[in-house]
Amino acid sequence: MSDRLARLALGRLGEPGDLRLSSFVTDLGAEEVHRALLAERDLHGLESEIAARLRGLDPERDLEQAARKGIRFVVPGDDEWPEQVDSLTGAEPVAHVGGSPLGLWLRGPLNLAQITSSSVAVVGSRSATTYGTRIAAEIAADITNQGTTVVSGAAFGIDQAAHRGAIGAGGPTVAVLACGVDRAYPAAHRDLLAHIAETGLIVSELPPGTAPTRLRFLSRNRVIAALAGATVVVEAATRSGALNTANWAGRLNRVVMGVPGPVTSAPSAGVHQLIRTRDAQLVTCGAEVLELAGPVGGSFLDEPRGEETPLDRLPHVDRRVFEALPAVQAADEAALARIAGLSPSQVTSALPRLRALGLAESNLHGWRARRG
Amino acid sequence: MSDRLARLALGRLGEPGDLRLSSFVTDLGAEEVHRALLAERDLHGLESEIAARLRGLDPERDLEQAARKGIRFVVPGDDEWPEQVDSLTGAEPVAHVGGSPLGLWLRGPLNLAQITSSSVAVVGSRSATTYGTRIAAEIAADITNQGTTVVSGAAFGIDQAAHRGAIGAGGPTVAVLACGVDRAYPAAHRDLLAHIAETGLIVSELPPGTAPTRLRFLSRNRVIAALAGATVVVEAATRSGALNTANWAGRLNRVVMGVPGPVTSAPSAGVHQLIRTRDAQLVTCGAEVLELAGPVGGSFLDEPRGEETPLDRLPHVDRRVFEALPAVQAADEAALARIAGLSPSQVTSALPRLRALGLAESNLHGWRARRG
Repeated sequence: MSDRLARLALGRLGEPGDLRLSSFVTDLGAEEVHRALLAERDLHGLESEIAARLRGLDPERDLEQAARKGIRFVVPGDDEWPEQVDSLTGAEPVAHVGGSPLGLWLRGPLNLAQITSSSVAVVGSRSATTYGTRIAAEIAADITNQGTTVVSGAAFGIDQAAHRGAIGAGGPTVAVLACGVDRAYPAAHRDLLAHIAETGLIVSELPPGTAPTRLRFLSRNRVIAALAGATVVVEAATRSGALNTANWAGRLNRVVMGVPGPVTSAPSAGVHQLIRTRDAQLVTCGAEVLELAGPVGGSFLDEPRGEETPLDRLPHVDRRVFEALPAVQAADEAALARIAGLSPSQVTSALPRLRALGLAESNLHGWRARRG
Repeated sequence: MSDRLARLALGRLGEPGDLRLSSFVTDLGAEEVHRALLAERDLHGLESEIAARLRGLDPERDLEQAARKGIRFVVPGDDEWPEQVDSLTGAEPVAHVGGSPLGLWLRGPLNLAQITSSSVAVVGSRSATTYGTRIAAEIAADITNQGTTVVSGAAFGIDQAAHRGAIGAGGPTVAVLACGVDRAYPAAHRDLLAHIAETGLIVSELPPGTAPTRLRFLSRNRVIAALAGATVVVEAATRSGALNTANWAGRLNRVVMGVPGPVTSAPSAGVHQLIRTRDAQLVTCGAEVLELAGPVGGSFLDEPRGEETPLDRLPHVDRRVFEALPAVQAADEAALARIAGLSPSQVTSALPRLRALGLAESNLHGWRARRG
């Protein structure tokens, strides 16, 4: 069985974002994992009754049926495999969701790797305001006009506005779905999705015909964050799924941006929170988005990856406190809070932890870094 | 002649924020400078014809006349001198304006040092929106309710709303004017100023009777920034005077905060710019203001002041690039731009300057810090 067919079959076994399965495939290869599961070998607790399910699958027929609908399945090594999604391998999971996709189902005329090589995700609340949808459409049009592809999730509200803005600017756009690429979800976006399938690309980890579930929206968000070179959040209430996408983008070291709004507007509260915690940078227009995303709109540059240090394992807040510590002259907690952009109580609680790790020391004047 | 009278007289010679005069007074004392000027000694170019002007003054009579209007003149060493304004001594001037005030004219029943010991400046555009004035008043009320004093400039728009919010919460508020404390400027705020004079404090560097000028607004802004423990900007167009106040607050190492608004609103553009450049932190309510200003709302804590290093003299952008440089593993310019929150072109232009100063070095993989 080929790598492609093995990946397709394995993808049918579980949910996208199944970190354990993804890790096995990364480490052993899809064919070997497929063989092992068929042989009912015990792979550290993966259910062995799945062998029966695997035997019941017919991935070749799946590919043929998909092809008749104009749908293809791309895997690593394919010309149009977007290598940037492989950054998901090794990224810390969120709520047990993580790992690189086993493969991606595509519908549309364009080459996925090419059109996402310079791309920005524009995402946000389903329950958006007219302000938010206007700004999302304007930013998407500006990005598209500069030759960068807008990626979003085809949901109501900001996502829809982002796709429409890109389409209005005459560019292709990429919709990543939490269901099969042949399904129209939400149903009201049937025409929008049909248009994207003709002029851009519809992408999903899930096989054709699959329905969306809550979990699938979460695993879908990581694919949006990984596909795009940077992510802009336009309106997100404090529990919006768009914050999950932003979280993933941050984990993947992508630039995360947020568009502010009135502080009286609940759909802007999550964005303001992202900016306050420095998890996102404030942007007000497409030009600022492209400036921060880089000269080619979020193209993927190799970043040097050093060996993991104790610093890499610090919680986010502790890391920021550590980075605020002076090397020589000690600073008091109030000064550290200002430098780190944290509350004094956050600093006060982080410092003993940093000292316990040998990363900070205190004297009469305050605290400083202890290195090496 | 006493220090108080000498300061009063010297204050009548020039404009507030005359850095040269302020420096002489700091270094030599007001009495000595007064004596020297009267003696027409040449003090590095200060006009010697001012001796004649000094002789024409009658500072004792000025004090008596002021006292009859309920106005006093406080100087360093007085019980109610707000020592935090002395942080202006040595701070880099803005457009030749700088230095500590020679003294402050006060009108109102409260002790200036006491009521500003925990204080936040709430400032912003004269041409504010109803959104901005509503938020300014709400934030000012929240701050006041927590026992922290709101300082502002009594101008139209945000300033007025801030004072009114504080008054509505039943607290004292401090108005710092660019004219004499006995004048109502703007005239439409006559009742507001009269109320503040009865329940809070009106403050000015300028003697009673003095009219406002453009320059005096600029020097007044530095006093607002220095008096308050932190500064919040609520709406400021890109050339608003409130940005000048924010600039001063940053120079004085005060926490600077900004309230976002719609990106389509011109009066929010300056605030968004402050947040984008990390010159201000985003806040959305009074609780967040007080959290960042510190547990006692911007009280003045001694900060350790190390010796000046080459880093302290770096331009702001270069400093941020330096701080983004890894200590060990080199990073490429795209990564540095992401870490520093700057555009790639800003990073590209800063790195050679840092290398020339011996602060950065490059290798095949990119750039890293060179320390010591």
